[in-house]
Amino acid sequence: MKVAKSKIQELNEPKLEEQAHRYHFLGNELEKQGINVERIVRQLMDLQIAIPSWALGAGGTRFGRFRYGGEPGSLEQKIEDVALLHALTRAAGAVSLHIPWDIPEDAAAIQELAASLDITFDAVNSNTFQDPKGQNETYKFGSLCDTSEAVRAQAIAHNKEVIDIGEKLGSKSITVWLADGASFPGQNNFRQALQHTEDSLQEIYAHLPADWKMYIEYKPYEPSFYSTVIQDWGTSLMLANACGERAYTLVDLGHHLPNTNIEQIVATLMMKGKLGGFHFNDSKYGDDDLTVGSIKPYQLFLIFNELVYGMEHNESNNPPLAWMIDASHNIKDPLEDLIQSLEAIRIAYAKALLIDSRALKEAQENNDPVMAQEVLQAAFRTDVRPLVQEARRRSGGAILPLAAYRALHVRKQLIKERGSDVVATGL
Amino acid sequence: MKVAKSKIQELNEPKLEEQAHRYHFLGNELEKQGINVERIVRQLMDLQIAIPSWALGAGGTRFGRFRYGGEPGSLEQKIEDVALLHALTRAAGAVSLHIPWDIPEDAAAIQELAASLDITFDAVNSNTFQDPKGQNETYKFGSLCDTSEAVRAQAIAHNKEVIDIGEKLGSKSITVWLADGASFPGQNNFRQALQHTEDSLQEIYAHLPADWKMYIEYKPYEPSFYSTVIQDWGTSLMLANACGERAYTLVDLGHHLPNTNIEQIVATLMMKGKLGGFHFNDSKYGDDDLTVGSIKPYQLFLIFNELVYGMEHNESNNPPLAWMIDASHNIKDPLEDLIQSLEAIRIAYAKALLIDSRALKEAQENNDPVMAQEVLQAAFRTDVRPLVQEARRRSGGAILPLAAYRALHVRKQLIKERGSDVVATGL
Amino acid sequence: MKVAKSKIQELNEPKLEEQAHRYHFLGNELEKQGINVERIVRQLMDLQIAIPSWALGAGGTRFGRFRYGGEPGSLEQKIEDVALLHALTRAAGAVSLHIPWDIPEDAAAIQELAASLDITFDAVNSNTFQDPKGQNETYKFGSLCDTSEAVRAQAIAHNKEVIDIGEKLGSKSITVWLADGASFPGQNNFRQALQHTEDSLQEIYAHLPADWKMYIEYKPYEPSFYSTVIQDWGTSLMLANACGERAYTLVDLGHHLPNTNIEQIVATLMMKGKLGGFHFNDSKYGDDDLTVGSIKPYQLFLIFNELVYGMEHNESNNPPLAWMIDASHNIKDPLEDLIQSLEAIRIAYAKALLIDSRALKEAQENNDPVMAQEVLQAAFRTDVRPLVQEARRRSGGAILPLAAYRALHVRKQLIKERGSDVVATGL
Amino acid sequence: MKVAKSKIQELNEPKLEEQAHRYHFLGNELEKQGINVERIVRQLMDLQIAIPSWALGAGGTRFGRFRYGGEPGSLEQKIEDVALLHALTRAAGAVSLHIPWDIPEDAAAIQELAASLDITFDAVNSNTFQDPKGQNETYKFGSLCDTSEAVRAQAIAHNKEVIDIGEKLGSKSITVWLADGASFPGQNNFRQALQHTEDSLQEIYAHLPADWKMYIEYKPYEPSFYSTVIQDWGTSLMLANACGERAYTLVDLGHHLPNTNIEQIVATLMMKGKLGGFHFNDSKYGDDDLTVGSIKPYQLFLIFNELVYGMEHNESNNPPLAWMIDASHNIKDPLEDLIQSLEAIRIAYAKALLIDSRALKEAQENNDPVMAQEVLQAAFRTDVRPLVQEARRRSGGAILPLAAYRALHVRKQLIKERGSDVVATGL
Repeated sequence: MKVAKSKIQELNEPKLEEQAHRYHFLGNELEKQGINVERIVRQLMDLQIAIPSWALGAGGTRFGRFRYGGEPGSLEQKIEDVALLHALTRAAGAVSLHIPWDIPEDAAAIQELAASLDITFDAVNSNTFQDPKGQNETYKFGSLCDTSEAVRAQAIAHNKEVIDIGEKLGSKSITVWLADGASFPGQNNFRQALQHTEDSLQEIYAHLPADWKMYIEYKPYEPSFYSTVIQDWGTSLMLANACGERAYTLVDLGHHLPNTNIEQIVATLMMKGKLGGFHFNDSKYGDDDLTVGSIKPYQLFLIFNELVYGMEHNESNNPPLAWMIDASHNIKDPLEDLIQSLEAIRIAYAKALLIDSRALKEAQENNDPVMAQEVLQAAFRTDVRPLVQEARRRSGGAILPLAAYRALHVRKQLIKERGSDVVATGL
Repeated sequence: MKVAKSKIQELNEPKLEEQAHRYHFLGNELEKQGINVERIVRQLMDLQIAIPSWALGAGGTRFGRFRYGGEPGSLEQKIEDVALLHALTRAAGAVSLHIPWDIPEDAAAIQELAASLDITFDAVNSNTFQDPKGQNETYKFGSLCDTSEAVRAQAIAHNKEVIDIGEKLGSKSITVWLADGASFPGQNNFRQALQHTEDSLQEIYAHLPADWKMYIEYKPYEPSFYSTVIQDWGTSLMLANACGERAYTLVDLGHHLPNTNIEQIVATLMMKGKLGGFHFNDSKYGDDDLTVGSIKPYQLFLIFNELVYGMEHNESNNPPLAWMIDASHNIKDPLEDLIQSLEAIRIAYAKALLIDSRALKEAQENNDPVMAQEVLQAAFRTDVRPLVQEARRRSGGAILPLAAYRALHVRKQLIKERGSDVVATGL
Repeated sequence: MKVAKSKIQELNEPKLEEQAHRYHFLGNELEKQGINVERIVRQLMDLQIAIPSWALGAGGTRFGRFRYGGEPGSLEQKIEDVALLHALTRAAGAVSLHIPWDIPEDAAAIQELAASLDITFDAVNSNTFQDPKGQNETYKFGSLCDTSEAVRAQAIAHNKEVIDIGEKLGSKSITVWLADGASFPGQNNFRQALQHTEDSLQEIYAHLPADWKMYIEYKPYEPSFYSTVIQDWGTSLMLANACGERAYTLVDLGHHLPNTNIEQIVATLMMKGKLGGFHFNDSKYGDDDLTVGSIKPYQLFLIFNELVYGMEHNESNNPPLAWMIDASHNIKDPLEDLIQSLEAIRIAYAKALLIDSRALKEAQENNDPVMAQEVLQAAFRTDVRPLVQEARRRSGGAILPLAAYRALHVRKQLIKERGSDVVATGL
Repeated sequence: MKVAKSKIQELNEPKLEEQAHRYHFLGNELEKQGINVERIVRQLMDLQIAIPSWALGAGGTRFGRFRYGGEPGSLEQKIEDVALLHALTRAAGAVSLHIPWDIPEDAAAIQELAASLDITFDAVNSNTFQDPKGQNETYKFGSLCDTSEAVRAQAIAHNKEVIDIGEKLGSKSITVWLADGASFPGQNNFRQALQHTEDSLQEIYAHLPADWKMYIEYKPYEPSFYSTVIQDWGTSLMLANACGERAYTLVDLGHHLPNTNIEQIVATLMMKGKLGGFHFNDSKYGDDDLTVGSIKPYQLFLIFNELVYGMEHNESNNPPLAWMIDASHNIKDPLEDLIQSLEAIRIAYAKALLIDSRALKEAQENNDPVMAQEVLQAAFRTDVRPLVQEARRRSGGAILPLAAYRALHVRKQLIKERGSDVVATGL
């Protein structure tokens, strides 16, 4: 299913006047505060978030999975789903593939399809947390960290293959997330596991094309329940430094222990020029993979505050970030969930752009936490929806993408096209 | 120091037009959605939050305390500080005293003073977590739960005395927070400690005047670091039920384990007609006692959603709640901190009042979590500051109370009046 | 595969002298302290732990599952596996079935098989967290709590059927664990969900045979990631009270928020006569379902301290507890994992039985936490393996069951009998 | 008060036979397993733990402090208390001073006193979390990180002075723990605060004598409740690397977020040759500063496993660790608490030394988590008290130091000597 631009215009039509009215009012209010509203709208239009191919089907937990219907059954259909999101939101112009779930049979054809839909290929993702069919070694006890050289060799070869596939599609980076760890004390020798991981990553890094980057993800637990080799940003950064200049740390919002100050980690990594990518989601307990902004929108705003600051104070040449949503859609329609996530990201970004950085700096210099809080809250409490909607309208997207999605009966149509029983590959 | 109404009017004057403009715009927007804006403004005007007497001085941690200057050195001065807050915000019309820190020498005079400043007396608070000067028994190992009958008797007598003092001032309730617990396994017999606590609370309850209520607070840890006798709402409710109809559970936002769903606890207690009071603050790690709304404003909104729902669906006759701010002002001017807290509470309340309860119910009945989220977020993302400011303006308060506080140089004036070295009683 | 008693005797033979030597030495040491060692050995022999049928196959996470080989493919084989465990340990004399995974085609035959292997039927478990094949309603959004009457009716009927099946097998209790909850704020009306759950449980309770009990499990999160209807012991107890005398709370060690003092909950529930059952496992992060005692053996000991105390001070007539291991065997051979869990439970129990309760009470009365700690640690630091091994030897089990399991090449034999590809039903 | 060696011998006398009997039995058992028991006893005799001067008085919380009586009122008395502990345990042969609480008036005399009591001077500790009397700048908003150059200069100068004082006493290292951080979002500019801290630490490092080391402590929160500049080991290591070869990370067991795998951090730091020191305590919730081993003895054992492994596989030339107890004695007699902590440390160390490292390695190489767990648990479940007591006996300490402490009525004697009202400096 495709959504024609004209169809979107049609849906926008009756809302245009109201949108103009609200944008005008807010714009005036903000201009009075010295804010360049047009500039913010353009920044919002520029922000593009990659959609991972595995997020387009129903997710599940270890207790089971409930189907949704109309899930994409092929790589082509996954790209079509991303295109659909992009048409509605104009914020999802890239897809992040996962190998082996998304090996293209005909890379050129897939590339062409994506180009025709205005979709680019973001980072590719390797998988060494499940056993590949028909291969010799098992990842049950680890992959890049395993005590067995054969297991490590298989995992390294897989990562190299992922890079090769990505290269054919035009990706420029690989994200390595490892489940490697231990579920019981004593199971692993911590130091050996870390050393093996470093050695393996270096081999993969050596295979990178010259214009590629490698992102190293960290996570404290799950699916390993006692220790994880790359348990935190400190370990990830250490490994990135051991690999080389084009290796970076990737932050996933859900991959932290309770109460971690994530925004501080973001700030530190950008200060060192080593923040590579960002996986958005939200959570209350662990790596819950909920809709972005559904639980802690203020934390998301504080993180965006650091991201914006880091991009504007980039003495360490931190590269442009690879943004991606990494969520699991257990009970919501995946596409609706992603629309809500994209909206939450743009809202947080817009609010962060509103922060009066001069006043904030002044409060900080004066050790005036009361005023610093006022500055941040003034931005956060502003209703920025007119800005976000204006950016989308100008880009040709739907002013209200979720309403449009429902008005167009997209899911019904997808079920009609694809059936109720297809299961997308993914978690 | 007192702030004259005329002074506040003067400060409001240059802001009136802008406020009217913004209120008018927002009001129109909301009325289009079928919302009765005038009703909400009135509800905001009605919400009064008690200020605890111990929150008017600088707080500290076990690592030390930094003075602020101009702290209130007497009960009279504490009441004056509350009056000052109330004059600026019109939201702080009550004070909650703590015995023995605030024993009035002349209750009638104090009552007169408070009345003249439009301040009433909310719940009184007992203290059995510090050793009283000149008494025989120590609370080092517990009070109402202690193994020694003499300790328990002393603690019970103290609570009765607190009730007696409160009665003279016009209070109608007592809040019992117990530090009782153990810092080491084996230190306490859990069951005996709980039984002693129940017996002691029943004795105190029996001393309550007929129109009084008792609020039983719970907390999982600190200052006891292994176990706390009243560790959670379940224990508190069990004790309240054992005492009688006028005993209730009190929820303090900071008194929960990591990741607790507090709004669900609120809903359950109101459903059973047993939520007595509420202590507002915010926290990232433990009982951090930070400014309300400074860390998790969305959680605060979700809690207010339940409070509003509970007040509107009150089949169990839950009594009107005792609202109080319970924060510690370690690095902010306490009065500025309280102004920010009062603002955050009103904002959360206003947003909760905006929730389209019919649409929410419909989404819930349809098992449509996407739409339920839209309904909540629509309310939360609305900028309600014009409503809150309108409520304050109409009540005679400052449109921007923090700005007014600074414009009036209140702290400087208080230091001038009271000196830099006075230390308020409290934590 | 069955393990003959004579085979076990044969394996024990070369270890008998050493065991007698160690038991003799320890016994002497303990008798000097006034401990009745023979009594403890008998208590250890009496402790029987149920094995849930779903724990006999490989467990997994949402990221995947690694097969083990030789998993039981039928109810008969599951019972044989439990019998195998029981033969080796003499501590696993019961099985806890899960419906619909374990519906017996011929209840009488199954009962006969179990009896021949000295296995009884513990609590039966219902399942409303996955969708039953061929039924009309989905549990995607809840079961006993759902907004739809049809869903609730289906879930209630299922629970009644589970009771009926259990009755045929000789079970005397049903355990109800509900995944019901919400993954997003607003998704559920907390109060309605709780009321529906209470009403549904009452219907199920009404179906209980007169000599049956109902156990109501609680859990704070997973698979719901925002709220769970029965989130804590307080809610579970409230529901048990609403059902009736034979409804009880069930504690699963993994179902708590970080840092919860579980032993205190155990003490409180036993004090009220409302602790029904216990699910053993261990965890570092969440409901990790690791081998009992593999992460926090001291906490397990403290819990057993309360269990022993509760059984010896049973003024409230708490019924005998239903003990069960509830773990997930993701990377260990399930049978080896269960052998380790059974050992850890017996060790914790033995240590708890060693506690000098008179000295502990004295320390508590004297507010002497130093001595209370000494008493507990003296018991915990004692090497009780000779007692546990003696109890097993006398019951006809293997002195070293894990060594025996490996010496007998059980897994190899099971793979030979059942194949490598069979997948046991379960998580 | 001093405890004569002869007095200790006298107290040991009636226990010697029993101790010999138990040591003999255990020794035999262990020798059968190929363990060199004499070597372990010697290693236990060698382990010396520093006592911080601030741990000798009653600790407290922000809610208050309960006095104990007989607290040391001077540096001399603090050293006498450490000597007392050392006489009883022979494990506490060093004291760690805190400046400005322990500035010696006559360094030579203090050194002589300590030498006469067999006490050496471990790391000195600076304090920039409280305001120094009579100085110009306040640390209310930070010290080494502060926005004001004057504040930073004062804090740097203080640290240099601490080094100078330490040098006079024979210390060889300084521990820097910073409370620097923020209690509210926006209060600090994360990057600037980190940069200032790095610059300041470098200045202090430059002042180190050539044979000195610097230890940089980390902590996630408290007393700052939103962010801490050195929030985790990653940040500490980054700063240590920025300072130079003789700067190291210091791990305090209580300074971690919930569920952190601390033993993995220890392993990583030793692998990199950057673990400088260790602060022992225990905790259930946060930085509870409880008696070592009172809550999670198995975690302590796992940490010692890594420490032993790291000392035996020291390719990175990690220097000998600075061991210290850092606890707060809120309700226990501080000296009794420290005796219990010293015992728990030695027990954990002894158990770690018992680990069959060859079998563990084999299990790890074979991906056999069941056997790895067996190896660790076999060591942990062994009752090593006879080894620890033997080590102490041979060193001239009390076989049962706590019993000796009570038999000698030490506290009573100290109160007699020093009075009940003296308050030791410290937390």
